[in-house]
Amino acid sequence: MPRTALAAVHDGRGNRLEIKEIQVADPGPGEVLVRLGASGVCGSDRHVLDGEWNLPSPTVMGHEGAGTVEAVGEGVTGLAPGDSVILSWYYPCRRCRACAAGKAWACTGTRAPECLLPDGTTRLRDGDDVVYPYLAVGTMSEYTVVPESAAVRIPSDVPFDVASLIGCSITTGVGAVVNNARVPAGSSAVVVGCGGVGLAVIMGLALAGAHPIIAVDTAEEKLAAARSFGATHTLRAGDDVAAQVAELTGGGADYAFEVIGRVETIETLPSLLAPGGVGVLVGLPPEGAKAGIDVLELAEAGKTLIGSNYGGAVPSLDFPRLAELYLAGKLPLDSLISHRVRLDEVNEAFDAMRDGTRTRSVIVFD
Amino acid sequence: MPRTALAAVHDGRGNRLEIKEIQVADPGPGEVLVRLGASGVCGSDRHVLDGEWNLPSPTVMGHEGAGTVEAVGEGVTGLAPGDSVILSWYYPCRRCRACAAGKAWACTGTRAPECLLPDGTTRLRDGDDVVYPYLAVGTMSEYTVVPESAAVRIPSDVPFDVASLIGCSITTGVGAVVNNARVPAGSSAVVVGCGGVGLAVIMGLALAGAHPIIAVDTAEEKLAAARSFGATHTLRAGDDVAAQVAELTGGGADYAFEVIGRVETIETLPSLLAPGGVGVLVGLPPEGAKAGIDVLELAEAGKTLIGSNYGGAVPSLDFPRLAELYLAGKLPLDSLISHRVRLDEVNEAFDAMRDGTRTRSVIVFD
Repeated sequence: MPRTALAAVHDGRGNRLEIKEIQVADPGPGEVLVRLGASGVCGSDRHVLDGEWNLPSPTVMGHEGAGTVEAVGEGVTGLAPGDSVILSWYYPCRRCRACAAGKAWACTGTRAPECLLPDGTTRLRDGDDVVYPYLAVGTMSEYTVVPESAAVRIPSDVPFDVASLIGCSITTGVGAVVNNARVPAGSSAVVVGCGGVGLAVIMGLALAGAHPIIAVDTAEEKLAAARSFGATHTLRAGDDVAAQVAELTGGGADYAFEVIGRVETIETLPSLLAPGGVGVLVGLPPEGAKAGIDVLELAEAGKTLIGSNYGGAVPSLDFPRLAELYLAGKLPLDSLISHRVRLDEVNEAFDAMRDGTRTRSVIVFD
Repeated sequence: MPRTALAAVHDGRGNRLEIKEIQVADPGPGEVLVRLGASGVCGSDRHVLDGEWNLPSPTVMGHEGAGTVEAVGEGVTGLAPGDSVILSWYYPCRRCRACAAGKAWACTGTRAPECLLPDGTTRLRDGDDVVYPYLAVGTMSEYTVVPESAAVRIPSDVPFDVASLIGCSITTGVGAVVNNARVPAGSSAVVVGCGGVGLAVIMGLALAGAHPIIAVDTAEEKLAAARSFGATHTLRAGDDVAAQVAELTGGGADYAFEVIGRVETIETLPSLLAPGGVGVLVGLPPEGAKAGIDVLELAEAGKTLIGSNYGGAVPSLDFPRLAELYLAGKLPLDSLISHRVRLDEVNEAFDAMRDGTRTRSVIVFD
């Protein structure tokens, strides 16, 4: 029996979302129906709205969500109605070489085109019209249907607003530190860009015992937030950041994270590093963007650039681990949420992200 | 008492070397006088001769050499006359943060300008004129004076021609596999460029148990050499290498090595890799060369680029280890030498390198 749900839908034109009632069908084999508790307002959605990435439309936006399993389809054995879950914006096939090797984020299993369920269809409709769930989850909706492997059970005492952030930005940021770079305690680190994911990188570095942790941004409010999450030093972008980092670290940082996705900052990342240092590319640039990397500098100084996708995470392992770290008081995730908003305030939330005036908005469903 | 030595000297103009008699002074404090047994003819010298890298002149070229300690200066305690040594083209200070951390190749200790001894002078003269030893070693000379830390003792039963190669190309190639990439046995690997260092990379991969080992080059003779050193497959550059590598490896290689230093091949390196794969930059491009790296591909597919300098080696540890591997029959270094030449045949040896018609020339001293 299809049920109706209010959802934030992008029609592929302009950058505004429309709140409309859609129909959500029952979960098919291997799928679960989830009633959303919260959905983060994350930068990747903004890339789509601002026309930097192309996707089919109309689309229910949102890819960072948590909620309660409402019903399960045929053959689903790992989840049951009532389970608290965090949604993952890719669904590991659990069979391919990458999944078998613990690199679920690089799953190369049979996949439907982006924004469709594994069988190449969607459970969402607007009357007679198909509606696509963004990245096969579409979390800015009261209900959504996802593949079983895209829903990961977590302890029921994690609030949904916090849990939703684990679904993308926290996993991406903390994972870049822990899984990709494997930063040892006592390492020096620089974080360029202190939006939601940048703050998650800083949180991860603080958890990992990095020192000093140097945050770089243009906005004083973001640098203040960076300090509250563990940055020991803050630098205004545009000043001579490389010279100041060299001064603070005695010759360059052991690790540097680019968390904007801006070609110009990616190009300067190696200059922040000590010889042998490691740069991590976390921010996602527009499609096809090429960064001009000084390869002789990279080779002569033995520096490394690591591309990080979804924090190198395996959701079924990382989501519960991050949730437990939150419950243990090791990751102050609730402090990251600056604004809790209603679904119909989503356009204002994206505008505030574009202005850089909010740390983090989360949509909370009733 | 200065002694005379025949040496191959570059006057900074054109790409020819002149064989002339120079004067070599006694070693100063902390220095050793070495009588060369052999000097490799390596690609980095060619970069200088062809005007791609700027250095002071006149210069005794050569940076890959081995020989016998003839005399030691005041305070030298680790070496004695009669010791067999391989020369290193940088001298670790043994005190700075990088040296202390086992990254001697990234030594940031007090250094003289390039091509001078630590005290900022040189022991080489041509009558009244100063002559610079290339990279503070200048191995294309019957005698040279180097800092103690640039001369590493090895077993006396390693022939000098083989030992000289350990001084640069073998350490660079095998070290890129073992120290930088730390390739686990069973990994798939591609090597782009099968000159002297590329063959050393292949030798390192074979030693490390990589499989398959795919060699790429334009020249059939180099591909034949690659097969003889352990390549399991060879591909002609220019064909659709990425598609063939994907076919041979089931979706992309675990490791890919660029051993040319050509911007175009560096830019395509990520396309040879499986998601999560590691590219290693071994070849050195001209100064200031920028490679346009597709950062979204790097980030989304979680690929890594490692800059490798001198194979990430610590000469005092790696030179004896590689020498022992040679003596144990694990590294067929003598097969790498295609031509043993006299000092006065050095220009022909560089021409043959430019033509790509020789695997490897080594100058042997009487």
